[in-house]
Amino acid sequence: MESVTLAQKQAFGDAMRKVPLFESERMRFDLYCLRPGQSQAVHRHDDSDKVYVVLEGEALFEIGGEVELLPEGSAVIARSGQPHGVRNDSTTDVVLLVTMAPRPTRT
Amino acid sequence: MESVTLAQKQAFGDAMRKVPLFESERMRFDLYCLRPGQSQAVHRHDDSDKVYVVLEGEALFEIGGEVELLPEGSAVIARSGQPHGVRNDSTTDVVLLVTMAPRPTRT
Repeated sequence: MESVTLAQKQAFGDAMRKVPLFESERMRFDLYCLRPGQSQAVHRHDDSDKVYVVLEGEALFEIGGEVELLPEGSAVIARSGQPHGVRNDSTTDVVLLVTMAPRPTRT
Repeated sequence: MESVTLAQKQAFGDAMRKVPLFESERMRFDLYCLRPGQSQAVHRHDDSDKVYVVLEGEALFEIGGEVELLPEGSAVIARSGQPHGVRNDSTTDVVLLVTMAPRPTRT
């Protein structure tokens, strides 16, 4: 059975770290790990939807021109075509569970 | 911004309850809420992958003929064509976060 323990997969670096968990042509399933001050710049995917779940910490999202701080236990969707990005503006680490469907050719 | 608070979405019933969170033709994103003894029978999707994340409790998965008990903080994938099901064989509630991609015509 292809299972993972999310806490064991966390990995941080000098910039936001993406940790792949599962992948097929239908989806990508990753952890995004952000130290304080780290971010993913606003970008867009014209053919994929993305859902973020905040597993740890609180993350500042910008999606479709709106900005919102979402705490642990929140989920938010960036639909195809919507510009989206995320920043850790807090003083503690942020861990996000991120699904993209379908898997984009470039992420 | 289309965000949800997962804890506020939990809902239980006389059988396993599916709570829709986000949906498009590309994916479904749901909570599955299982009281002790509740289950989803083994079934398969020939054109969709499914990822389960155990948010609360511990769940007994059967995927591709293998059976495994996974605790909170685990994630597991049932790839298209793999028979899969889940049961709450414990004495406490189970809450799963479930992604399917693409959205199947029947779930």
